[in-house]
Amino acid sequence: MTEKLEALAAMPVKPGAPKLPGPAIDEAFRTLGGWTLADGALEKMFRFADWRATMAFVNAVSDVANAVDHHPDLELGWGRCTVRWSTHDAGGISQNDLACAARTELIARRPEPK
Amino acid sequence: MTEKLEALAAMPVKPGAPKLPGPAIDEAFRTLGGWTLADGALEKMFRFADWRATMAFVNAVSDVANAVDHHPDLELGWGRCTVRWSTHDAGGISQNDLACAARTELIARRPEPK
Repeated sequence: MTEKLEALAAMPVKPGAPKLPGPAIDEAFRTLGGWTLADGALEKMFRFADWRATMAFVNAVSDVANAVDHHPDLELGWGRCTVRWSTHDAGGISQNDLACAARTELIARRPEPK
Repeated sequence: MTEKLEALAAMPVKPGAPKLPGPAIDEAFRTLGGWTLADGALEKMFRFADWRATMAFVNAVSDVANAVDHHPDLELGWGRCTVRWSTHDAGGISQNDLACAARTELIARRPEPK
């Protein structure tokens, strides 16, 4: 399962990625785990032990966004963050979103530093 | 105007602050500038030049939250962040929210570093 997730995360993020057909997204959902399609975006809520852990996650996701120049919408409060990836230019979900959702998932699965 | 805002920002943030009456909030609104009351929270959307500036703002607001142990809800994307301050335990807006909204406002008015 982790191998499939890592393969998804390793997909390149490129400008102009087209909208993906439904079946390709369904396949990715099984790999991602717990993500849903909401208002044309890939969405998942993550929970954390406290504000510090929430912000550590937010900044790690921000680093992904900076690295690939593709940016999520985030909704956060104490102990929770909802992440939404979509590709406005493509009018839906592109490979860029699947790759970034997988990278987000890998961040969330990292063990907490002691 | 800035003096009034700084006075608001300097108010202490303490556990157990009670819900404020409407007139006290209305007075603060005039000082804050551009904040609204939405679903029982003090709310304002801020706009930024890019993702980096957005995240710099988010982290500065997070530092305020850490310092006073009072935490906002944030909704953000490329170039924008909506900040919401409310006091769940008081069932509305407390002095803590006015102080934190004023601190948020001061952060947003800082000149961008070159």
